[in-house]
Amino acid sequence: MKLLIIGGVAGGASAATRARRLSETAEIVMFERGPDVSFANCGLPYHIGGEIKDRNKLLVTTPAKLHERFNLDVRVRSSVLAIDRTQKTVHVRELNTGREYDESYDKLILAPGAAPLRPSLPGIDLPGIHTLRNLPDMDRIKAIVDAGAKSAIVIGAGFIGLEMVENLIHRGVQTTVVELQDQVLPPLDREMTTPLAEVLAAKAKGVTLLLSESAEGFESADEEIVVQLKSGKRLQAPLVILGIGVKPENQLAIAAGLEVGPRGGIRVNEQLQTSDPDIYAVGDAIEVRDVISDSPTQVPLAGPANRQGRLAADHIFGKQVRYRGTQGTAIVGLFGKTAALTGASEKSLQRSGIPYRMVYIHPAHHAGYYPGAQAMALKLLFTPDDGRILGAQAVGGEGVDKRIDVIAVAIQAKMTVFDLEEVELAYSPQFGSAKDPVNMAGFVAANLLRGDHPQIDVAAYEKLAGDDQPFLLDVRTADEFNAGHIPGATNISIDVLRAHLDELPRGRDIVAYCQVGQRGYLATRILLQAGFRVRNLSGGYKTYLLWHPAEAK
Amino acid sequence: MKLLIIGGVAGGASAATRARRLSETAEIVMFERGPDVSFANCGLPYHIGGEIKDRNKLLVTTPAKLHERFNLDVRVRSSVLAIDRTQKTVHVRELNTGREYDESYDKLILAPGAAPLRPSLPGIDLPGIHTLRNLPDMDRIKAIVDAGAKSAIVIGAGFIGLEMVENLIHRGVQTTVVELQDQVLPPLDREMTTPLAEVLAAKAKGVTLLLSESAEGFESADEEIVVQLKSGKRLQAPLVILGIGVKPENQLAIAAGLEVGPRGGIRVNEQLQTSDPDIYAVGDAIEVRDVISDSPTQVPLAGPANRQGRLAADHIFGKQVRYRGTQGTAIVGLFGKTAALTGASEKSLQRSGIPYRMVYIHPAHHAGYYPGAQAMALKLLFTPDDGRILGAQAVGGEGVDKRIDVIAVAIQAKMTVFDLEEVELAYSPQFGSAKDPVNMAGFVAANLLRGDHPQIDVAAYEKLAGDDQPFLLDVRTADEFNAGHIPGATNISIDVLRAHLDELPRGRDIVAYCQVGQRGYLATRILLQAGFRVRNLSGGYKTYLLWHPAEAK
Repeated sequence: MKLLIIGGVAGGASAATRARRLSETAEIVMFERGPDVSFANCGLPYHIGGEIKDRNKLLVTTPAKLHERFNLDVRVRSSVLAIDRTQKTVHVRELNTGREYDESYDKLILAPGAAPLRPSLPGIDLPGIHTLRNLPDMDRIKAIVDAGAKSAIVIGAGFIGLEMVENLIHRGVQTTVVELQDQVLPPLDREMTTPLAEVLAAKAKGVTLLLSESAEGFESADEEIVVQLKSGKRLQAPLVILGIGVKPENQLAIAAGLEVGPRGGIRVNEQLQTSDPDIYAVGDAIEVRDVISDSPTQVPLAGPANRQGRLAADHIFGKQVRYRGTQGTAIVGLFGKTAALTGASEKSLQRSGIPYRMVYIHPAHHAGYYPGAQAMALKLLFTPDDGRILGAQAVGGEGVDKRIDVIAVAIQAKMTVFDLEEVELAYSPQFGSAKDPVNMAGFVAANLLRGDHPQIDVAAYEKLAGDDQPFLLDVRTADEFNAGHIPGATNISIDVLRAHLDELPRGRDIVAYCQVGQRGYLATRILLQAGFRVRNLSGGYKTYLLWHPAEAK
Repeated sequence: MKLLIIGGVAGGASAATRARRLSETAEIVMFERGPDVSFANCGLPYHIGGEIKDRNKLLVTTPAKLHERFNLDVRVRSSVLAIDRTQKTVHVRELNTGREYDESYDKLILAPGAAPLRPSLPGIDLPGIHTLRNLPDMDRIKAIVDAGAKSAIVIGAGFIGLEMVENLIHRGVQTTVVELQDQVLPPLDREMTTPLAEVLAAKAKGVTLLLSESAEGFESADEEIVVQLKSGKRLQAPLVILGIGVKPENQLAIAAGLEVGPRGGIRVNEQLQTSDPDIYAVGDAIEVRDVISDSPTQVPLAGPANRQGRLAADHIFGKQVRYRGTQGTAIVGLFGKTAALTGASEKSLQRSGIPYRMVYIHPAHHAGYYPGAQAMALKLLFTPDDGRILGAQAVGGEGVDKRIDVIAVAIQAKMTVFDLEEVELAYSPQFGSAKDPVNMAGFVAANLLRGDHPQIDVAAYEKLAGDDQPFLLDVRTADEFNAGHIPGATNISIDVLRAHLDELPRGRDIVAYCQVGQRGYLATRILLQAGFRVRNLSGGYKTYLLWHPAEAK
């Protein structure tokens, strides 16, 4: 068996080492265009920011070590220019020497990754406009910061964009973020990103956030870059970083006549085989199945890439494998805040036309009576009929990662919100609550589906108007009400509600709310049993403020 | 509907509030023998230790608030003396006044909890010997510490015992822990508790740990307590705390002729009904089904108690419910270390006669290249045939809670180790790894079951002797080997192993090991394919050191 692997980072390196463990006799050659293999690409922003001080820490291994330990033939600075599927050879150029040669294969694994998008805008190729994919990219950006850059412009407020903002600010670089959409972190639903936008704006961090804005061109001026924005605004800085997404490296596959999807991802079956069964493809370059929508998608994440590399090697060496698809679990830390998601977002469900229900909760990450409890907002999406979990998003501080990971497993297991009610998580006051946020989300969602707890979400409430406008009942204390409430609300505290039922309208819809939804739930139960038509505003005033942050005091 | 609830803490209070949400018209009376309802019993040690400064924080709610908000009739300092099942009444004594009266019920929920064990030893009732169950207990212990106690003796190194040790040390109280078993935290397997024993012994914290030791009697001396130990040793301190377990409060149930199990837990069906269908029982007083062994057990934990209270109320008000049993997820923090478990331990599987396989891994809690990665030891137990997860234990620092919670859900979903390979958790370098510890555990276990990665655990290895004694191969570097190795090992580094195969014995079993198991795995693959009979020592030298901590340098 002669196995060639194109690409030496996550998926490629995983495939190579797995292949060697499965076969001591296989000839395994790994080609990598760049100078490094198996580097920690998720760590690049943190070396620029100084959090990871030692650059060598990013080199998980080296070609020499891979040869010594795994008997791999690793060829860096080697670009594969073409695949001859008939001859079963690849044509390789050594970038350092210019030498070109053919190498034959029995099986071939494509793990070329994805390239940062560089839109064709005027001036896009000016020096000073950077993307961040590998160590040389990182070195160039870091050199500019090290040289004393005082400002930077980050185009795109996705995962990498936000990580760059945090790290540039850590280095004292005033940073402007330009994002096309009307929110940061577009994979999340907009309201869930409010705490991130707030932390960017807060405390004079030195960040300027420009939403619904985009770059239209770039010019040189005073050895800096001027960014011409769509709004007419012009920004200038010595450093511009593009973080607007990636596109699959599919040229080699296309040239070889392999199928690619509409968004460019190399098509593979559940065994990671391309349309040529002797050629596998893994990692950011491929199209994968979204496990929620069951439709093709592209998810450039390290975990799935590693997994795919492993499975491709397994299949080549005769094992039965099946890649289950990707559910897109992802996370970002931003100035002490954490945002994470798993499965589908509300907008992705809408795009896919999948029916859903949802609830919001605002639990503390551990027992409230123990010092240091941090708030989080958690949004849970599930099917309207059987309550199967479709997705979750959380934003807050500590403990966000844990709850998203727990729900990620629940999604994998096709669990329902009724199962979440029963989840038994580790509780002592510094680690969680007797009723964990995951249980609470299950309770609220299950009560909704059982019909015990009719709920309406903020967006749906705000679409009601005219005759449909419900009576809005704030059941918090007068102090809470006076500190800020939803326009048009009437305040009757939950603790006196039973005595004031005659002040509520019969024959008209009522929406009750409190701070986070708990008292509103009790109010809803009281009113339902008294014959009123009532729904609780899911997640209460805190969720309202996610939609209307300007109204927060 | 007239519903009486006996006991006003976790299970009782959950049942009462749930019942009210389900019915505005029910008459709901909750009797509590103590002065407080719904207090945070898991927080008691942390108020003594000063971590939770405000005692009021422990009072989640008050009788007055429960009356106001939930229209509950809460009667504290009210002891229910008897149940008349024929008349459907309970006989109540007001402890403050001595007044006695009967109260009728349609449905009755028993939530009396469990009482700390007080073994019948000479002097057990001396003042100065305390248990910790409620706020008055806490106040008494705290008063002794506040008064300047310099030393204390904690009998029992279980969850509460260890939490008391930590909090007493925080207060500057020299503490001796006396534990009957040869390990701390008996619910865990012994080797997994080594890091806890080390942290107790380390850094002159002021803790003395006496294992395989027990109290045989107590005497008064100099206004202090002298504890007579089985070994003949005598300890003296002004404060002795018993933390040796709890027993169900079943007297009322037994007197009423309700069934109890062999260990005293009140018998209930899946709807939480006792042998009298009008009487429910929930919380620490009941016998539950262990979801792993499917046998009756008793698990005094807050989460299950709350859940049971909720379900009992649901069933009373006509909902279909089924309590799935308890899997015993639990956690403890001890001087910055964390230990947690879910599902079965190895010893509980042995007790139940359930066949199992297991693996050990020693991952970092997040990417090793990002600063601050903390080590953990993780033990995963699963069925030998289909790999269904039976239990997990982890000990380390940060991130232990997350991995145990993730595996807890996997157990609930009846997932296998093959599923753990595929788990998609949130990864960025400060939160996890592209191959999360949970994935790693899945890989190692799945490779074992697939036959690709034969493994032997330390305990099994050490039982081999004489002719069965395998050739022991240490594949770490010479430096690592010289810094400490397993007696009898031969050192051949993994990186030169392929060139030294002729130095290894054919026809004799080989056990390979490295530091954590990863290089040992590769060595095993190399040797297997070269025709040797070889197994990898699961978890490597780090696991060996869990068994032999004295050999650690």
